[in-house]
Amino acid sequence: MATQGQVITCKAAVAWEPNKPLVIEDVQVAPPQAGEVRVKILFTALCHTDAYTWSGKDPEGLFPCILGHEAAGIVESVGEGVTEVQPGDHVIPCYQAECRECKFCKSGKTNLCGKVRSATGVGVMLSDHKSRFSVNGKPIYHFMGTSTFSQYTVVHDVSVAKIDPKAPLDKVCLLGCGVPTGLGAVWNTAKVEPGSIVAVFGLGTVGLAVAEGAKAAGASRIIGIDIDSKKYDVAKNFGVSEFVNPKDHDKPIQQVLVDLTDGGVDYSFECIGNVSVMRAALECCHKGWGTSVIVGVAASGQEISTRPFQLVTGRVWKGTAFGGFKSRSQVPWLVEKYLKKEIKVDEYITHNLTLGEINKAFDLMHEGGCLRCVLATDT
Amino acid sequence: MATQGQVITCKAAVAWEPNKPLVIEDVQVAPPQAGEVRVKILFTALCHTDAYTWSGKDPEGLFPCILGHEAAGIVESVGEGVTEVQPGDHVIPCYQAECRECKFCKSGKTNLCGKVRSATGVGVMLSDHKSRFSVNGKPIYHFMGTSTFSQYTVVHDVSVAKIDPKAPLDKVCLLGCGVPTGLGAVWNTAKVEPGSIVAVFGLGTVGLAVAEGAKAAGASRIIGIDIDSKKYDVAKNFGVSEFVNPKDHDKPIQQVLVDLTDGGVDYSFECIGNVSVMRAALECCHKGWGTSVIVGVAASGQEISTRPFQLVTGRVWKGTAFGGFKSRSQVPWLVEKYLKKEIKVDEYITHNLTLGEINKAFDLMHEGGCLRCVLATDT
Repeated sequence: MATQGQVITCKAAVAWEPNKPLVIEDVQVAPPQAGEVRVKILFTALCHTDAYTWSGKDPEGLFPCILGHEAAGIVESVGEGVTEVQPGDHVIPCYQAECRECKFCKSGKTNLCGKVRSATGVGVMLSDHKSRFSVNGKPIYHFMGTSTFSQYTVVHDVSVAKIDPKAPLDKVCLLGCGVPTGLGAVWNTAKVEPGSIVAVFGLGTVGLAVAEGAKAAGASRIIGIDIDSKKYDVAKNFGVSEFVNPKDHDKPIQQVLVDLTDGGVDYSFECIGNVSVMRAALECCHKGWGTSVIVGVAASGQEISTRPFQLVTGRVWKGTAFGGFKSRSQVPWLVEKYLKKEIKVDEYITHNLTLGEINKAFDLMHEGGCLRCVLATDT
Repeated sequence: MATQGQVITCKAAVAWEPNKPLVIEDVQVAPPQAGEVRVKILFTALCHTDAYTWSGKDPEGLFPCILGHEAAGIVESVGEGVTEVQPGDHVIPCYQAECRECKFCKSGKTNLCGKVRSATGVGVMLSDHKSRFSVNGKPIYHFMGTSTFSQYTVVHDVSVAKIDPKAPLDKVCLLGCGVPTGLGAVWNTAKVEPGSIVAVFGLGTVGLAVAEGAKAAGASRIIGIDIDSKKYDVAKNFGVSEFVNPKDHDKPIQQVLVDLTDGGVDYSFECIGNVSVMRAALECCHKGWGTSVIVGVAASGQEISTRPFQLVTGRVWKGTAFGGFKSRSQVPWLVEKYLKKEIKVDEYITHNLTLGEINKAFDLMHEGGCLRCVLATDT
């Protein structure tokens, strides 16, 4: 291709400072080095983690940077030694890498590959600890190893999943974060069994994906909990069978749920990132076996607490990242499930905008009716 | 037998008030009612839970009461409808019941039978919500459904395990609490696999039983942590392969252990009941899979806390009660394992006294060299 080995100048949404509107800039994207892949991003969605870092509350957030981590695109070129993808492949960038060689990947117990974390955690690439993005010579940090709010990005080869080219990229971009996180929390982390009673705290995209996963797993009751009662109508389509608004009760929500379920739920999922809700989610679990999974990301410095008696009497407290899915191995499998209509994706997309409208998209995230907003990058 | 159906007057150690020496009294023990068993206790050990309630710090502690829950004896008589034990059977009273009929027993997921808890939690028997103990007509509360600091006690039939009469009661009395709690925390709750790295916080009886269980499970490294370095010598005999005294380090103990194990331990066990240590035990676990089990009982009102990031990155926080063993089904199995020399018991007994010396036995518990003190009740 004509661009291979060249610096590409393209449009990207740059976060110059925390909490200031993103600016569409002409960004220079350097060619991929050894073990790297340059991807033409066609569609990217927004996720709350983008908003969290953008807000400045993330102490590890680095500025200026290019945010974005839920996207799909086509490989433009690859660096030396890259064998698993080639130009033209349809791909989903994966903020959670999978190298298949490190202690984590080989453990068989976790999806938290450690290979590139020392670089992605500080906004650079592993080989030279530098960024591939710049604006007029000034380096712009990467974000989560993906930086998808750009027409082109560079990712590590262990951080890109090759998918079926038949899959519509404007839809399957969602399989880069929120939907797999919810489905996997149920299937991989909690391992919900048929007949289980499930509580889902927070009915955004991740919470709805938890409900969808629980329904697929055969849960008998799926109780949605949200402070916005309007969410119940949509949530029914994803499997939520009962709804509780904590604001409608004087009792603590954990007690409401224990009373509603003759002793507590079998599995609960916190999909908000609120440490008080995390406690409620644990404490609404049934004595003896109830398992609570933390899915939401809490603000920096916040802590969870409970009485140890809650655990001594048989409750289990866990968490999940990317739903426990091995990214490169299992994102393609999720895409296939979508193509076979075994999982929903389209239903999570409530808005479509363009990269140029990204600040409007951030505003939409705070509206109750917005699940996912997909941005087309080529306009 | 001559005593069947009669009130028995015998010696028992009565806790009249919190934190005051126990008093050996002539106690009247009423005959067992339907579903109850009267047991002649021959040997009883002391456990820290007895000391905790005796201290007055247990808000659910009721006085006057007869403490004690780690013992062995012989059935003296049974009430109506009792079919699984008969006079003359050798038994171990079980503070954790097993009815095989309730939601908990039938779940296949927990040992926390709920059948008699509403009564044992408030110091009485289930059938009439009254005590079987009295001193000159004044009722004395039961404790944990066992009250073994007495020559005779009355327990529910779901709270007594029939054991091999060949087993020495002065030894297997320990299988009523501490030793199974430690072994089961490893085998049932954590399910430690061969090759695992294990950390044990607190090298008392329960911690040593954890080490023993971990060794039997094939752990490759068993790291004992205690603020009394003298405990390492004894601990070696139970499988502890390395020792760390937090007082020897400036860094937090979790960091010391993470450094010592290239990222953290696979399994940790808190066997003290200290909420700060519970946090350290979680945080010394390896990212991605490390599992921490709370075995110790914390003082009332205390809370555990950590950053949710610890769980989101793959650590699991659990707890255990009686090591997850189903009491009536599995205590006899543990007795058999002891008889086949597959588990230690004798090695935990450091002192032998009589019931009349019980206050001295409580004093001994606070000495570093004491593991278990067994009291003969017939003298």
